[in-house]
Amino acid sequence: MDLASDLADIVGERLSCSSAELYCYSCDASQVRGRPEYVVRPKDRDEVSRIMALAFEKRVPVTPRGAGTGLAGGAVPLKGGIVLDLSSMDRILEIDCSCRQVLVEPGVVRDRLNLALLPSGLFFPPDPGSSAMCSIGGLLANNGSGMHCVKYGTTRDYALDLEIVLADGSVIHTGSQVLKSSAGYDLTRLFIGSEGTLGVITAARLSVVPLPKARRLVLAAFRSPEEAGLAVNRVLSAGIVPAACEILDRTTVEVLHRCDPHLALPTADLILFEADGEPTAVLDEAARIEEVCLQSAISIDTASEAAEMEEVWAARRLVGAAVSRLDPKKTRIYVGEDVGVPVGMMHVLIRRVQEISEDAGIPAMKYGHIGDGNLHVALFVDLSDEAEVERAKLAAHRIHLAALDLGGTVSAEHGVGRARSSYMRLQWGGALDVMRAIKRALDPRGILNPGKLDLGSGTDCDTADAGAGL
Amino acid sequence: MDLASDLADIVGERLSCSSAELYCYSCDASQVRGRPEYVVRPKDRDEVSRIMALAFEKRVPVTPRGAGTGLAGGAVPLKGGIVLDLSSMDRILEIDCSCRQVLVEPGVVRDRLNLALLPSGLFFPPDPGSSAMCSIGGLLANNGSGMHCVKYGTTRDYALDLEIVLADGSVIHTGSQVLKSSAGYDLTRLFIGSEGTLGVITAARLSVVPLPKARRLVLAAFRSPEEAGLAVNRVLSAGIVPAACEILDRTTVEVLHRCDPHLALPTADLILFEADGEPTAVLDEAARIEEVCLQSAISIDTASEAAEMEEVWAARRLVGAAVSRLDPKKTRIYVGEDVGVPVGMMHVLIRRVQEISEDAGIPAMKYGHIGDGNLHVALFVDLSDEAEVERAKLAAHRIHLAALDLGGTVSAEHGVGRARSSYMRLQWGGALDVMRAIKRALDPRGILNPGKLDLGSGTDCDTADAGAGL
Repeated sequence: MDLASDLADIVGERLSCSSAELYCYSCDASQVRGRPEYVVRPKDRDEVSRIMALAFEKRVPVTPRGAGTGLAGGAVPLKGGIVLDLSSMDRILEIDCSCRQVLVEPGVVRDRLNLALLPSGLFFPPDPGSSAMCSIGGLLANNGSGMHCVKYGTTRDYALDLEIVLADGSVIHTGSQVLKSSAGYDLTRLFIGSEGTLGVITAARLSVVPLPKARRLVLAAFRSPEEAGLAVNRVLSAGIVPAACEILDRTTVEVLHRCDPHLALPTADLILFEADGEPTAVLDEAARIEEVCLQSAISIDTASEAAEMEEVWAARRLVGAAVSRLDPKKTRIYVGEDVGVPVGMMHVLIRRVQEISEDAGIPAMKYGHIGDGNLHVALFVDLSDEAEVERAKLAAHRIHLAALDLGGTVSAEHGVGRARSSYMRLQWGGALDVMRAIKRALDPRGILNPGKLDLGSGTDCDTADAGAGL
Repeated sequence: MDLASDLADIVGERLSCSSAELYCYSCDASQVRGRPEYVVRPKDRDEVSRIMALAFEKRVPVTPRGAGTGLAGGAVPLKGGIVLDLSSMDRILEIDCSCRQVLVEPGVVRDRLNLALLPSGLFFPPDPGSSAMCSIGGLLANNGSGMHCVKYGTTRDYALDLEIVLADGSVIHTGSQVLKSSAGYDLTRLFIGSEGTLGVITAARLSVVPLPKARRLVLAAFRSPEEAGLAVNRVLSAGIVPAACEILDRTTVEVLHRCDPHLALPTADLILFEADGEPTAVLDEAARIEEVCLQSAISIDTASEAAEMEEVWAARRLVGAAVSRLDPKKTRIYVGEDVGVPVGMMHVLIRRVQEISEDAGIPAMKYGHIGDGNLHVALFVDLSDEAEVERAKLAAHRIHLAALDLGGTVSAEHGVGRARSSYMRLQWGGALDVMRAIKRALDPRGILNPGKLDLGSGTDCDTADAGAGL
């Protein structure tokens, strides 16, 4: 109770210890579970600093949390302690149009930032499926990206400066307002993607870019994922840089049709290209994409009217939700769902996932960002059927191994958290020891988000094996 | 002599200990000086690994070196020991056009890489003034950039994977062939810009991009650097992203005219814009740049023929050399030459540098990458005139302080090395302690490039104050 009263001294009524509230903070959007002892909702950097200083002194685990939309358990407290809910720190502090920068608190929701930027003709490109809910802090912590990464890059490419509260409560800045610097280690990029294991982001200066003047979609249908993958390789080899390049495999299209029979999508392996930029250049680029795809496509459609394009994108966005409406008993599980491989290997990966899904007798929708090699696999199971769950876990394991075998990554944009921590050694080899050395150097007491990313060895809070998971 | 024979066991005749050869390795392109005891020229990763294991065991300093074109003493050995000359590891190992990637050894010279890429229609964008000589390893170690950074970013944006030999000789990979990943800490970016203080880069996988189909130059002349700076702000605010955006101040243009009276440059504060991309979009963008600049420019010229454009770029490239031809007694000194500020502050910085130069009675040419806030200042002095040297050093110090005062950096692209190490605390505050903690974690014996970046405290080789410098 001492700690509760110390925390209340800092945040007053923005402290929760009731079972009901703690329960609400025991999950994110994945299947990972873990219960905190305290939830605090700081309102500014100074409160975060005082909370960390206290946690450091008392050696209490702290799990930072944004909007809780994560898919790997990154924001789930595995060792009890404090959940630091940063969603109330949601001010847009500055929009600087001439320098094309914004300064935001970590709780700002991604779509709200872009809404605020709209009058300036600027936007922040990373656009995960959770854009309407996810926080900038979460995007930074996981290096989120989304559908336009193939042209616009990931969150990492947009951070100029982070304000970080370190494990002991001290505050640093990792950059400045300057667009480039060669003065010292790139701490900005080190904290991006570190999932709250090295420090707490309390403010971020981001660069933003001009909205494209025009957009055009090209929807190409193919006989097989191999043919679709090879067409993408040819488009990229032709020197074209599409703004988006998505794949929906035949299974995914079939599921979409069962959800909405009016959807105007051909039943095939589909590639959805978007060209954006200056109007004439967009027309030209879309024509070149069509020309390359014509060699092997069954059909090609284009769209440039806002309503037409929105219909196609709405179908694409429906994918995540479609699964859950197929069978009320089945739940989508978030394992093996975010692998990445070299772009040229994507068609091989899709074939292997198909085989794995057939072996397991578990249907798999395969879709995602083929232009940057990121495949999302939706496995859905009846959670009350233990044998089915076991088969699905094995299938997910085989998908992870297939991605690594093809020179890939177990997570391209969702993060490692707890759900994928057991693959860190396999993916990284000796580089994991370097990550662990950095973790020990910056968080010697192991209080920051313990149990994640297999960083644990040798720190106070992180010696026992982390429990939860699917 | 023990160490010499151990080193000879590894590299055979590619070991030098003679005074003449050691002298050649006691400098780079800056004024920093320091003498090694041994120079080795490894031919592959395994030799580098064995050399590092030996140095680790014997606690001998190791200074990695690329082409020696650095401007901050980064490759100069300040604590004796071994210089690891990586220039012989210069193989282009792979060019993958469909995935737009290359795999290179660190000694590959930047322009040679782009020459090899030419038939594929691809290029590696970072283009420092030393492109014809500098190595990819050096670019990575310093996060080099150059004239097209405003659109294409810095070296950091192009690295997918680094093979690194750590302080104890072990080898890790920091990434893979995958374009994006959210699995663990971003070690790739941590090693980029770390100037050989954390490990030795022995191979790099880089992404490359399609060559633009067309280019066009717009040369706008202004009455003052303020007016030039404000015009740049207006161009950027209009949503235009030029491929290059350079400033040559009036002093620089006057010096250029004295070197080559036939140069067709108006005597004024000049901004050189480049538009690149699809032909129609380039025409349109150049016209929009002209339109914005017309509000305040004295004159505007455009060029789109290769020969015309080359003439202007040749004048821009002449700047570095022009100084040295003005007065045979005077030498350009590399201090205060690479500051960066927020783009919107550039015209303020230029005015302050002008004042500092007048106070010191030392002429300063001011030029550089105004589009990303990076100003190069050329101070030139008679090195035999001690009073003049002291005045120049004080002027450089004031330039660094002015950049920091405007929220900037003491180095935007040249690196810190020894020449700017005394500013690390001032620029970074507590973040320097985080960098030092990382340094100790990865290089506990302090053998990697000691004496640089003010990282020294508490490591074996780096306790005494580093000596050399201007």
